[in-house]
Amino acid sequence: MTVFAKEEYAARIKRAQTMMSQAGLDALLLTTEPEVRYFTGYLTRFWESPCRPWFLVVPALGDPIAVIPSIGAELMASHGIKDIRTWPAPQPEDEGVSLLIDALAQFPTVGTPMGQQSSLRMPLADWAKLNAAHPIRDDAGIVRRLRLVKSDAEIAKIRKACAIADAAFAQVPSFAQPGALVSQVYRDFQSACLHAGADWVPYLAGAADQHGYGDVISPASDTPLQNGDVLMLDTGLVHDGYFCDFDRNWSIGPPQTQVATGHNALFDATQAAFAATKPGAKASDLWRAMADIVGATETGRLGHGLGMSLTEWPSLTAQDHTELVPGMVLTLEPSIEIAPGKLLVCEENVVVTATGADWLSTPVARDIMVIA
Amino acid sequence: MTVFAKEEYAARIKRAQTMMSQAGLDALLLTTEPEVRYFTGYLTRFWESPCRPWFLVVPALGDPIAVIPSIGAELMASHGIKDIRTWPAPQPEDEGVSLLIDALAQFPTVGTPMGQQSSLRMPLADWAKLNAAHPIRDDAGIVRRLRLVKSDAEIAKIRKACAIADAAFAQVPSFAQPGALVSQVYRDFQSACLHAGADWVPYLAGAADQHGYGDVISPASDTPLQNGDVLMLDTGLVHDGYFCDFDRNWSIGPPQTQVATGHNALFDATQAAFAATKPGAKASDLWRAMADIVGATETGRLGHGLGMSLTEWPSLTAQDHTELVPGMVLTLEPSIEIAPGKLLVCEENVVVTATGADWLSTPVARDIMVIA
Repeated sequence: MTVFAKEEYAARIKRAQTMMSQAGLDALLLTTEPEVRYFTGYLTRFWESPCRPWFLVVPALGDPIAVIPSIGAELMASHGIKDIRTWPAPQPEDEGVSLLIDALAQFPTVGTPMGQQSSLRMPLADWAKLNAAHPIRDDAGIVRRLRLVKSDAEIAKIRKACAIADAAFAQVPSFAQPGALVSQVYRDFQSACLHAGADWVPYLAGAADQHGYGDVISPASDTPLQNGDVLMLDTGLVHDGYFCDFDRNWSIGPPQTQVATGHNALFDATQAAFAATKPGAKASDLWRAMADIVGATETGRLGHGLGMSLTEWPSLTAQDHTELVPGMVLTLEPSIEIAPGKLLVCEENVVVTATGADWLSTPVARDIMVIA
Repeated sequence: MTVFAKEEYAARIKRAQTMMSQAGLDALLLTTEPEVRYFTGYLTRFWESPCRPWFLVVPALGDPIAVIPSIGAELMASHGIKDIRTWPAPQPEDEGVSLLIDALAQFPTVGTPMGQQSSLRMPLADWAKLNAAHPIRDDAGIVRRLRLVKSDAEIAKIRKACAIADAAFAQVPSFAQPGALVSQVYRDFQSACLHAGADWVPYLAGAADQHGYGDVISPASDTPLQNGDVLMLDTGLVHDGYFCDFDRNWSIGPPQTQVATGHNALFDATQAAFAATKPGAKASDLWRAMADIVGATETGRLGHGLGMSLTEWPSLTAQDHTELVPGMVLTLEPSIEIAPGKLLVCEENVVVTATGADWLSTPVARDIMVIA
């Protein structure tokens, strides 16, 4: 059960090693699920349990060293990792820290991701112990720079995740009828994602409110859908460990004019951003293309990277000038205020190609979909 | 949309404040989803996005201060939090750190969870900035000690999550027939969880292999179920933000003798642990009750706490001598090696009561279920 051929992981490690030697690092220390998976293929939902830390050391020369709970040894070995050092976690008095310090001893200069959108997945007390024995520095953005650009194999996985979500979104009118509870619509939609082929559905957000919505992050309520509602569903489902992240809107009954024109503006903004997406353009250029149409303020984000996580670098903001290169996967996510406290949000997924961009999600029509 | 009455959160804060004054702390700093939700009720799947940090400050005197991305302000306010300080995340050059340093300035001694099973959810570079301005210490185990013991309201939520999983498990024979692909069984089971009332299904693990299984953490394969397989499904589904965590086993066709007797032993071990579960007993006593029957080595874990996370403190190990008190919710999770490399694992959920224990999952029968 390996998602990619071993050459994919070998190429990632080789790129990391080139960057390490440029940055003067002897090894990388990785602690989070996507980081460990990126270099090994180690895919398991077991990370949902916060009780066990997992460590991967990627040296600038040589093969990775996994320092992990013994329960993961067999699966890690199946991914071709040869140097696997285990402890019987949970073992609070030494939760892998001594093993990790030993593994790092041969590498004078070790970096771990410390910058934007990163986090450390181990207890701070153990982090302090580790640093007392072996000070760890920043990874010089190596993990970010690697994951920012997807391989063709990764893009194919994201494309498939998007196709699964396309198929699930097509089912929504069959269960999101007036009178259906919004909470049940959320359940039915997640079920539709699974039936369409999702491995699991880590993320579903959305909204349903009269003539637009104000809040897109609350859990679903037990309110029935009614005429005049705009229903929005935004999913991050997973296929072989890769996410899609896009949404769809439906008007329950005929849309008010401001809903109809708002949706048209979001469509136009998305098309403008798509047209601007090409190698050499900046993340902020895509933001500008959308902001000019939807009237966004300088502080909002209108899209982001995605891949092994629901959201990744870059951010489509006025301030993020990351230069686009082929292989970057982005969401285009304009939002528009159509009345005080009433928003609409549309989102599509695209990939930067050698000459421009390709759609990964099947772009929605300009007119909002209507459930009658 | 508040899961509990505001008195529940007020009581939690009050208990935390008592502990803070005993520990000489002026405030707690919380950064993870369950920690922030524990004190506020703030429930959203938006945490799936790793790009934005969220901070909650709980003072030893006075009301909590939320330092959060502006996108969360409305939802946080709906939970009765009055002091909400926001920034327009993502804003990498200052991802809330200045606001947080300002919020902490009035509290000389601030603790955050640093011990077992904890983690920090913010970039390490920002953690360093914060500590340079305002050194943070360990929370003296306050968050762990609070979450270790569930209120009646929390127990009711976990009981409901267990009932939903009970109903979903009852559906398994309808789709887990010989010839069904294991990957499809996983999808159908998650869908059954949703249809039975789960809000979402963060965790599903399992296995299917001839006469027992060796690996319980790998993703599902596309192999068809066949006679002689033992199918195990282990789910952590969520209801109102609270988890269940238990499994079920089915023999596809009549079980081999070692499978049948192994399942009986797991049942007996679970019953023995249940009989041992009462106030004053130790986590290690429950481990011992099971280990004596299944022949476990000293290094394994045979159950754990659960609640707002899939796995929590304590661990049912030989080394964890946490004393049980009413309100602790535990999984009893014995495993047995029935042949070289072949395991069976059973899991039930229980709550410690004033006089003993109650089942939260409906305990499985002694004989393994058979799908013919």
